[in-house]
Amino acid sequence: MARVLTPQAEDFPRWYQDVINKAELADNGPVRGTMVIRPTGYAIWERIQSEMDDRIKLAGAQNAYFPLFIPESYLKREAQHVEGFSPELAVVTHAGGKDLDEPIIVRPTSETIIGEFMAKWVQSYRDLPLLLNQWANVVRWELRPRIFLRTSEFLWQEGHTAHASEADARAYARRILHEAYQDLMVNVLAMPLVVGRKTTAERFAGATNTYTLEAMMRDGKALQMGTSHELGQNFAKAFGIEYTSDTGGREHAWTTSWGSTTRMIGGMIMCHGDDNGLRVPPRLAPIQAHVMVVKSGDAVPETAAKLRDALRDAGVRVGFDDRTDTPFGRRAVDAELKGYPIRVEVGPRDLAAGNVVLARRSTGGKTPVPVDKAVDEIQAALAADQQALYDQALAFREARTVDVTTAADAVEAAATGFARIPWSTLGTAGEAELNKQAVTVRCL
Amino acid sequence: MARVLTPQAEDFPRWYQDVINKAELADNGPVRGTMVIRPTGYAIWERIQSEMDDRIKLAGAQNAYFPLFIPESYLKREAQHVEGFSPELAVVTHAGGKDLDEPIIVRPTSETIIGEFMAKWVQSYRDLPLLLNQWANVVRWELRPRIFLRTSEFLWQEGHTAHASEADARAYARRILHEAYQDLMVNVLAMPLVVGRKTTAERFAGATNTYTLEAMMRDGKALQMGTSHELGQNFAKAFGIEYTSDTGGREHAWTTSWGSTTRMIGGMIMCHGDDNGLRVPPRLAPIQAHVMVVKSGDAVPETAAKLRDALRDAGVRVGFDDRTDTPFGRRAVDAELKGYPIRVEVGPRDLAAGNVVLARRSTGGKTPVPVDKAVDEIQAALAADQQALYDQALAFREARTVDVTTAADAVEAAATGFARIPWSTLGTAGEAELNKQAVTVRCL
Ligand SMILES: [Zn+2]
Ligand SMILES: [Zn+2]
Repeated sequence: MARVLTPQAEDFPRWYQDVINKAELADNGPVRGTMVIRPTGYAIWERIQSEMDDRIKLAGAQNAYFPLFIPESYLKREAQHVEGFSPELAVVTHAGGKDLDEPIIVRPTSETIIGEFMAKWVQSYRDLPLLLNQWANVVRWELRPRIFLRTSEFLWQEGHTAHASEADARAYARRILHEAYQDLMVNVLAMPLVVGRKTTAERFAGATNTYTLEAMMRDGKALQMGTSHELGQNFAKAFGIEYTSDTGGREHAWTTSWGSTTRMIGGMIMCHGDDNGLRVPPRLAPIQAHVMVVKSGDAVPETAAKLRDALRDAGVRVGFDDRTDTPFGRRAVDAELKGYPIRVEVGPRDLAAGNVVLARRSTGGKTPVPVDKAVDEIQAALAADQQALYDQALAFREARTVDVTTAADAVEAAATGFARIPWSTLGTAGEAELNKQAVTVRCL
Repeated sequence: MARVLTPQAEDFPRWYQDVINKAELADNGPVRGTMVIRPTGYAIWERIQSEMDDRIKLAGAQNAYFPLFIPESYLKREAQHVEGFSPELAVVTHAGGKDLDEPIIVRPTSETIIGEFMAKWVQSYRDLPLLLNQWANVVRWELRPRIFLRTSEFLWQEGHTAHASEADARAYARRILHEAYQDLMVNVLAMPLVVGRKTTAERFAGATNTYTLEAMMRDGKALQMGTSHELGQNFAKAFGIEYTSDTGGREHAWTTSWGSTTRMIGGMIMCHGDDNGLRVPPRLAPIQAHVMVVKSGDAVPETAAKLRDALRDAGVRVGFDDRTDTPFGRRAVDAELKGYPIRVEVGPRDLAAGNVVLARRSTGGKTPVPVDKAVDEIQAALAADQQALYDQALAFREARTVDVTTAADAVEAAATGFARIPWSTLGTAGEAELNKQAVTVRCL
């Protein structure tokens, strides 16, 4: 069979780009760094959105929508924030047939405009906590774009909350970190994580504390999967988010923000994918079981259709392929590329023996199972393979993580994986030294 | 009780703005014509999105996402299209710290950029029909903005499809019109519609035929609730969407596009709202039954909480208010404003007789019902009130629609409602005459 993808070991970034093209996940857009998310890729995003939205609502936040356009003056109100984002901004200078008096920023994030409205809506301690989330597109100009990982426009959710005390703000930033982000990434995306704090140097622009979730990709490198920030009173002071406390005094609120993006798709691809394509974890997969008619034959299409319906009735997300005018081999390669967790092959020979064949993407195994046991076997296999993908990724990471005691050893370890070093040993001086070698301290 | 809203009869536009403020649906954004959709308003949008998305997927379209930013050159390729949109465009001229060589348009709609990618993806007749949809924000600069109705940025879904024949394209544009838009607007939004075609003068920029759905607001005026366009081969020719037919020839595809927006929220408000606030149809309502503790008392909070849980278990979307430190009257006014279809009042006096009180927003009626019958009664009332709102709106429209035979009579009738006139009588000359009187031909 012809090679479909560049092997990971040969050129990992090229493998990544190949998978995205061949599995029809996304394309580059015409404007630098933008992306077109194709239906196969977008279906994965919809699953992530749905699972994330459930968790965010369970944590008590409500969805809202704030404008794409932000007056330039807003961004300037928080000094660190504007400094952090200035090089990445896209600016509208002309609208409705006229040059604008004040340039408009296309939002890179919404702390400032949401801060402005929180200041209106928060009057008393009874209005707190105010827990908001929005699903939106944001723009940060990218000079070295990579689809899903760094794009000039990306999709995300951004949460913004205001609280009466620092302790309450901190507890909520951590609650989202664990109950929304970590829970989804571990239990749905099947990705082992290192969860902790960023160093001062790596914090979000305007934050007093940034929590991060870091995962290891199959090239041994770390990817930041999401962040949750304590913003202290920085934005509350810049935008006047003040409230009357229960004792009658005026206080500034304490705010948080937290975001997770289409980058999660890139992380999932690079954590689980192999030289045959994607491996999508069953709990995430838009198609969990892909029923394929191998070739026509007595009762074959009917059995396949019945099995599809029975799976659907059992709550399995199911795909169906009866395009027998296309060679089965080509269709099977495509199913591997797209990473459907289970291929259910229905063909005349196996069916004569009362069987269909389950091909499991995570392990590569092929097993005949009796037609009338297929639904149960598939459900069991989906649950087992969800765990198997997590276990594989964890074993991979553990094999590439070493404990070190010097910055020099950390640089060496980082060439192939993660280095674990006590912060008391490293410190900010050691961090600066690592940065010179293009190694970053990801997580405390 | 103090007047909460400007009465509709006194000043309808002001009533509309009052409702939006007092029910906390939305605010004006800082950049001209932009809006902030607050949680109460956004929850309504999420319900519309969910219902619309189901219908679009049932009609076979798949979701995807295309970039916010479109090269200026793309818009220029279809002459009518660029002419129609030019006055409304927002233009990015500066990004990533530099002036751009080619200005970037913030999408006013995505026919052009999607056309570019359809041309890549469509090769053979086997690739057709290609049925795409996206949920996105778009920007059309507004000089006279009104929240939800005309805003510089709005949220919408835009469908874009390519077909092998004009007949297939036409059938699909109509399928979406009826099975997605009309079905949702009639059966969920409870709005009677006039469905038909736009005149040549009123068509979408670049379309060969535009279908529309028009509803009457409570000031007697029409609101366009959605449109579905046949684009002929205009965009296929401009972007090179060509395919090899089953006989081997090269053909241009036939495309459609169709959109529905946050304006639907405005339509729902103005079709059903009254002087006490919103009336949200039960099938749409994020909160269908709002359980309220009138005041504390023996077993009152416990009964209210049990009823809430029983309603939730029965599949009713339920709200809960036990803030007995706020006067009940104020909370009841707020519930009216927000238009919850049924208020379930749980108070000590009624409960002593074994009852709770159902207050129905659509009719204003208040009925005591035994606690153990409440769930059944509420479900029956929700179904009846969905129909009642539709019937009221239909009766209102019928009372304000007159058959006329001259353009002069049509102008007179349009002052208070709709005029129905044969197109053969009116024609394009009559249409021009009506336009001088600020009357438009909405639907053929
Ligand atoms: Zn202040
Ligand atoms: Zn052509």
